[in-house]
Amino acid sequence: MLLRPELIECTDPDPVRHVCGEADLRAEPPPSGARKNSVHPIIFSGLERSDIKIRCTLLSMRVLGIDCGSEYTGYGVVEETAERKLVCHVNGAIKLKSGTPMAAKLEKIFADLTAIIAKHQPEVMAIEDVFYAVNVKSALKLGQVRGVAMLAASSSGLQVAEYSPLSIKSAVVGYGRADKIQVQQMVTRLLNLAAPPQPTDASDALAIAICHIHTAATNSRYAAVSR
Amino acid sequence: MLLRPELIECTDPDPVRHVCGEADLRAEPPPSGARKNSVHPIIFSGLERSDIKIRCTLLSMRVLGIDCGSEYTGYGVVEETAERKLVCHVNGAIKLKSGTPMAAKLEKIFADLTAIIAKHQPEVMAIEDVFYAVNVKSALKLGQVRGVAMLAASSSGLQVAEYSPLSIKSAVVGYGRADKIQVQQMVTRLLNLAAPPQPTDASDALAIAICHIHTAATNSRYAAVSR
Repeated sequence: MLLRPELIECTDPDPVRHVCGEADLRAEPPPSGARKNSVHPIIFSGLERSDIKIRCTLLSMRVLGIDCGSEYTGYGVVEETAERKLVCHVNGAIKLKSGTPMAAKLEKIFADLTAIIAKHQPEVMAIEDVFYAVNVKSALKLGQVRGVAMLAASSSGLQVAEYSPLSIKSAVVGYGRADKIQVQQMVTRLLNLAAPPQPTDASDALAIAICHIHTAATNSRYAAVSR
Repeated sequence: MLLRPELIECTDPDPVRHVCGEADLRAEPPPSGARKNSVHPIIFSGLERSDIKIRCTLLSMRVLGIDCGSEYTGYGVVEETAERKLVCHVNGAIKLKSGTPMAAKLEKIFADLTAIIAKHQPEVMAIEDVFYAVNVKSALKLGQVRGVAMLAASSSGLQVAEYSPLSIKSAVVGYGRADKIQVQQMVTRLLNLAAPPQPTDASDALAIAICHIHTAATNSRYAAVSR
């Protein structure tokens, strides 16, 4: 659970510069006893500022990453804790048996993803924004899986965020053209996993979730600064 | 409702040739009082053959045709009656507002199709088997819509049948390269509609449903002959 502080009471003449502009509130530990919509004085650089109060709201940072494929669909749920640690709750891949009718495959993906969402309660689904495929036929197949995955998220009340392969690899490895093994190794280290996630579809899914967490953190800081 | 007769009791030494092979049972009017799983003597060329009995089972011939598109998704429910007449129960198109997030669009398609299925109770969904698209990006978008449409059918217990654009146009117009207007005109005549279905996505969807009915009838006759 990560807390997003919002200024609700302030006697400071320039709170944007003095509080939001100078301090990253997200980097501060949440006030003790903080919970959704609770109101607290702000602790700014270790000093309590009772003239400025913040409302703590839950920031959705449990993310389901999905890596769609026509054979394996990787998934992974990653949470950024209040201490800004990344924790992996689950990862794996849904295998689609070749020879099964497409409609039955899609039903399995929908059912499995809906069950994962119900069990691990992420607030957002992050998915690769694919603009390439080997050919039109494989793009259509991939699109079918992707559509059903997005529907599973949306019908469970999750927001859907899309990221390009370049953004995902850059966010995790720092290099947009990293290969699957490099992504797997970095994901293993970032999530402090005992062993690399298998298959690589699972590590790709975790990378997509991590990319969303990094991007959301950056956006949040940017929004705080430009408020 | 169309009845599929199945031989269940027979003293004829060669029922395949004498009954199924020579007469198209489907062309015979259903026995009076026929209902699901009721047993009747066969009426063969107008004469009752009490030595051969048939079981009447419902043959699923109410078909939902779907024409997927990234802007409009056409739909149409067509039934082949026991008298082999084609009746249109509903037709139209689900419009997807541009600017709406893809996940919300997919949710609308799923919800609308599920509602249409629940209201009109088709037993089969027929859909175009697309192998072409302008480019990979549009193929991915189309695939997403197609995947969700197939899921709506499958999760409502419908079988999904796929037909190539060539088969659909051949079945309805008799010419595989017919344009949308020709398809619309033929659908209007075949279903005896007061006005052409609008938009053409709706007439395309009806054409797909008609194609399935024609194909199923042919397959059924072929199966009866080669039994």
